[in-house]
Amino acid sequence: MNLDRDGAIGRAAAYPVAHLATTRPSGAPHVVAITFAIEAERLYSMVDHKPKSTRRLQRLANIEANPHVSILVDHYEDDWGRLWWVRIDGEARVASGGEAWESARRALSAKYQQYLVRPPAGPAIVVEIGKVNWWEPAR
Amino acid sequence: MNLDRDGAIGRAAAYPVAHLATTRPSGAPHVVAITFAIEAERLYSMVDHKPKSTRRLQRLANIEANPHVSILVDHYEDDWGRLWWVRIDGEARVASGGEAWESARRALSAKYQQYLVRPPAGPAIVVEIGKVNWWEPAR
Repeated sequence: MNLDRDGAIGRAAAYPVAHLATTRPSGAPHVVAITFAIEAERLYSMVDHKPKSTRRLQRLANIEANPHVSILVDHYEDDWGRLWWVRIDGEARVASGGEAWESARRALSAKYQQYLVRPPAGPAIVVEIGKVNWWEPAR
Repeated sequence: MNLDRDGAIGRAAAYPVAHLATTRPSGAPHVVAITFAIEAERLYSMVDHKPKSTRRLQRLANIEANPHVSILVDHYEDDWGRLWWVRIDGEARVASGGEAWESARRALSAKYQQYLVRPPAGPAIVVEIGKVNWWEPAR
C-alpha cells in the first residue's frame, strides 16, 4: 500500500471511467457508468450526449432525494495481480448552472477530448469527496 | 436496440467484470467490482482470494440487511460510439453452503480459468435476476 489518500484520488482522477452508485427513494441501489473529473476535493460528472436509456435520469432523482453517493474507479485485467481500485464516498448535489456547473464543464472538457468537440450541456453532479478507500497489490 | 432481454443477459454473462451496488443500513450506497457468472436467471458472485480491503465484507452485511442489488456490466472505450451496458437489478442473498453455493462455485470455476487453480471458497452472493435494462448503439 504505497498510495496515500491524495495519491489514490490522483490515480482515480486519471482514469477515464467510473461507476456511480446512488440509492433510490425505495432504498434499492442504482449504478451507472460515468465520465468524471476531479479537482480540489470535488468530483464532477455531467449529463452529456453519450447514450442513455432515458432523458429523465434516475441518478439525478436519487441524488436529489438522498445525497450519499459511492463511486468506484477500478482497473480489471485477466492478471489478477494487477487489479486496483479506488472508492470515493461523498455527498452529491445536482447543479444546472452557476459556478459549480461551470467548473464541472471546464474540468470535464479539459480531461476528455470528446468534450472539446461537444461539451456536456446537461446538469452536473457535484460530489464533495468524503471517505476514500483504495487497494493496490503489495509490491 | 437489437438485443432482447435474453440477449442482454447473455452479453453481460460473457463479460469478465461487473459492478455491484448495494445499500448500506444507513441508506448510503456502496459499490464494488466483482467477478460473476450467470446461469438460468441467477447471477452468482463469491468471495475469493482476490484482494479486499477487509475480510468482513460490507457487501455481505448490506445484502443481509437489504436484498436489493443493482449490477452493471459495461464496456468503455475512447470511441464513445462503441459503448454498451447491461444493468441487472434483483434480489440477493448470501449462501455459505448448500446447493446455491455449489452452483456458484461451479459456474464461476467454469467461467474463470483463475478459479480452476484456486476455486473461490468464501460466501456466495446469489442474485435472482429481476429487471434488466440495456443499451447499445443503434446500427
